Amino acid sequence: MTKEVVGEGGSFTAKDYHDPPPAPLIDAAELGQWSFYRALIAEFIATLLFLYITVLTVIGYKSQSDPLHSKGDPCAGVGILGIAWAFGGMIFVLVYCTAGISGGHINPAVTFGLFLAFQKSYYTRYGGGANSLNDGYSAGTGLGAEIIGTFVLVYTVFSATDPKRNARDSHIPVLAPLPIGFAVFMVHLATIPITGTGINPARSFGAAVIFNQEKPWDDHWIFWVGPFIGAALAAFFHQFILRAGAVKALGSFRSSASAV
Amino acid sequence: MTKEVVGEGGSFTAKDYHDPPPAPLIDAAELGQWSFYRALIAEFIATLLFLYITVLTVIGYKSQSDPLHSKGDPCAGVGILGIAWAFGGMIFVLVYCTAGISGGHINPAVTFGLFLAFQKSYYTRYGGGANSLNDGYSAGTGLGAEIIGTFVLVYTVFSATDPKRNARDSHIPVLAPLPIGFAVFMVHLATIPITGTGINPARSFGAAVIFNQEKPWDDHWIFWVGPFIGAALAAFFHQFILRAGAVKALGSFRSSASAV
Amino acid sequence: MTKEVVGEGGSFTAKDYHDPPPAPLIDAAELGQWSFYRALIAEFIATLLFLYITVLTVIGYKSQSDPLHSKGDPCAGVGILGIAWAFGGMIFVLVYCTAGISGGHINPAVTFGLFLAFQKSYYTRYGGGANSLNDGYSAGTGLGAEIIGTFVLVYTVFSATDPKRNARDSHIPVLAPLPIGFAVFMVHLATIPITGTGINPARSFGAAVIFNQEKPWDDHWIFWVGPFIGAALAAFFHQFILRAGAVKALGSFRSSASAV
Amino acid sequence: MTKEVVGEGGSFTAKDYHDPPPAPLIDAAELGQWSFYRALIAEFIATLLFLYITVLTVIGYKSQSDPLHSKGDPCAGVGILGIAWAFGGMIFVLVYCTAGISGGHINPAVTFGLFLAFQKSYYTRYGGGANSLNDGYSAGTGLGAEIIGTFVLVYTVFSATDPKRNARDSHIPVLAPLPIGFAVFMVHLATIPITGTGINPARSFGAAVIFNQEKPWDDHWIFWVGPFIGAALAAFFHQFILRAGAVKALGSFRSSASAV
Repeated sequence: MTKEVVGEGGSFTAKDYHDPPPAPLIDAAELGQWSFYRALIAEFIATLLFLYITVLTVIGYKSQSDPLHSKGDPCAGVGILGIAWAFGGMIFVLVYCTAGISGGHINPAVTFGLFLAFQKSYYTRYGGGANSLNDGYSAGTGLGAEIIGTFVLVYTVFSATDPKRNARDSHIPVLAPLPIGFAVFMVHLATIPITGTGINPARSFGAAVIFNQEKPWDDHWIFWVGPFIGAALAAFFHQFILRAGAVKALGSFRSSASAV
Repeated sequence: MTKEVVGEGGSFTAKDYHDPPPAPLIDAAELGQWSFYRALIAEFIATLLFLYITVLTVIGYKSQSDPLHSKGDPCAGVGILGIAWAFGGMIFVLVYCTAGISGGHINPAVTFGLFLAFQKSYYTRYGGGANSLNDGYSAGTGLGAEIIGTFVLVYTVFSATDPKRNARDSHIPVLAPLPIGFAVFMVHLATIPITGTGINPARSFGAAVIFNQEKPWDDHWIFWVGPFIGAALAAFFHQFILRAGAVKALGSFRSSASAV
Repeated sequence: MTKEVVGEGGSFTAKDYHDPPPAPLIDAAELGQWSFYRALIAEFIATLLFLYITVLTVIGYKSQSDPLHSKGDPCAGVGILGIAWAFGGMIFVLVYCTAGISGGHINPAVTFGLFLAFQKSYYTRYGGGANSLNDGYSAGTGLGAEIIGTFVLVYTVFSATDPKRNARDSHIPVLAPLPIGFAVFMVHLATIPITGTGINPARSFGAAVIFNQEKPWDDHWIFWVGPFIGAALAAFFHQFILRAGAVKALGSFRSSASAV
Repeated sequence: MTKEVVGEGGSFTAKDYHDPPPAPLIDAAELGQWSFYRALIAEFIATLLFLYITVLTVIGYKSQSDPLHSKGDPCAGVGILGIAWAFGGMIFVLVYCTAGISGGHINPAVTFGLFLAFQKSYYTRYGGGANSLNDGYSAGTGLGAEIIGTFVLVYTVFSATDPKRNARDSHIPVLAPLPIGFAVFMVHLATIPITGTGINPARSFGAAVIFNQEKPWDDHWIFWVGPFIGAALAAFFHQFILRAGAVKALGSFRSSASAV
């Protein structure tokens, strides 16, 4: 805000931001620190809350649209719109709450089985949260839905947390959790009718294990292959196209050459 | 913003924020001050508005999905999604409005009876707002829903108003009322079909007194035990895990020892 | 932000904000200035857009839930939830857009008749926007709904634009249009089933003139008396309770006395 | 923020902001720069994501409200409210993500055909996204809906990104993508029942080419004439009324004259 050094073409010649150093996959020194265990616990709790709220919303909706249970009001349930809000809204709340403590990955593989103990019969009857292809959609359509859905989410996360853009655009850091939550909301609105929306292999895997029926297992590869391709494409797009990793080297070469 | 002293491991060695001193439950000196009575009045009015809007939304919805009243459109009502928005949105508006004047606790025990005078017949017929277990859910499921629902709310409130995080993350204070409102929205989406969503003993108690029928009284303990356990767990989680009260003492001991 | 002089009890002893001087109802000098006419035009256009979007949403919903028109889908319409979003969302957008140019009062008395020309038949058939008591609600209930609904709106507007709070709480000015829009959303969710939601005499009057049928004219006094009482109560509440106009005089007297 | 020179009547005498220089339609020098191609790619990808999410939401909704497919729940689909959220929410996410890289125009003419390959049969059956007049609305009503809908969008974009207002009102830049997304949400809520909501000729043209049936082609002129008139009116309104281009020249003449 106080000084801005902007080169020609809108790109920065003098960096007024700092890229964080690349993070190693497993950092041995970190394993002995309290902040590491704290992050583990925070992730575990956040995942628990995420699954509890979203699975309950799905079950509650299916239970109420079940003709055996509904009490004269076929429209009582929250509908797909309500389910999409539950997923997107919880991501907004939890990314907001865990920011600065853990990465907010909300990986449900570990925690999934745990909380279902107390209403497994409802869960099994209504298949709350298990991902599989709905009738009338091909595997290719489902795979495409998972690829593009994951791309939307990962692209938004990269854009909202990019240190270069945070330094340049003052509105970026303020609202970061909001567009991430909205991206999840949007993807669910569009792809719940196709696959139930996975865009997270661990979430699909955990639900498949609990539900344990043939159809989700047959389609299960889609919810691993799709998200991995989508996330890889988004990472490539952000690093090499938007931030222009390769071209930046060339660009700085040219600018130093022309300065001679 | 102007200076940041960050130690190793991402934790602050020199505090650039101040914890507020612990607040006594009843502060004798405060009883004589205008700001105390002002806060009382602000809370009372905020609670009145909160109850008016939310109970009316519930009654309006039930009245329109009532076959005796509906005029050819079974889906005219706002549905559970609309009710969840009413609760979450009012909390957002009122936390925003009362911030800095009172704590925004919005405790309806006192005000509940007051405003119902002018349409008690509708209230009684549609049971607007009284919490009880819905058919097909066990007491354990309902208790779990209240515990986790209260946990989500209290955890979000602590995270959004934590002075340490406010000092570190610039986006935290700006949006504080928004995630709190969204947390309430989410909990209602998920647990309205189970218990009608209490997560506030005073709100459940007030509604039970007015409605005064057997079923809500039988289930009433759930709406005291659940919120107390959920709030206690969230307070413990925030103070001793996320802010690491116990470990911080050890950590500062170690760092001063290693400085010798 | 740079310095904060906070006295005991949380009140400011040295003002770091400035109350705007009281505005005269009609300022003769202002009548000759371009900025005055600009504000008039901006208000007129904003009102036109507000009415166009909201009335069209109401008509579109009623047209689709009309059995003569609906094509096999009774749930196609946006419902009361969608109508409430249309009112609240447009207020958010327009308060945001007109801030700094005009007060954003969005007073539809003048503009109402104008834009209805091109689809009056739809408007008349579905009564889009005309306020009247719905069946089963007494005049007292409707009056109460208008009083409290207007109170919620005006109270939120005062809180969100209070110069004292803007100076103290950094999150207040950033989000100002959002809680105002949400307050309108909430009030519509709650009171559409009762009165159709007026909370603005000019809006109710304009719609009654166009629609011109007996029922809206019979109930019309409610939409003048209710909003005036609600707005007066909110102004009193904000000025004399929350900002404590009367007590502040006493307080400053005491503090100057004790300084001797 | 640091200094504010405000003249009489609330207008600035000394500019504390800078208008960007007028942009040429095609800038030859820009064609050789990487940042130009990067913006092209970013626009292409953003458009792809926008169309994928919104068209899928429309198709998913129509598929589920189709009596041949629906499984006992006529209200399962997201409804017009959900479709309006999909359009508005994606605009919010994408304007947020592309800010600073490209203009975020999201022009689908080029990309439309591309992604439909893998589920063309669904697209054709449910006409997902093709704009045409619905039964019972005249061409004049549809044209008016497109003019005013485009006006709302373009007016909001100008207001949210105006450099003069950004300098004066601190809350403007922070929230810029949010009111733009909400404006799109609102326009869709109101005009989906009339025209399916175009407000972008390229989007309407792309959908008409793919769908390629008589009715959309007959009505197609509406989706070019309407948006152009609406955008032109909004540009005129913003430049000559709100920012008062013409009058400002006069005003500065008068003030320098009176200073003599």
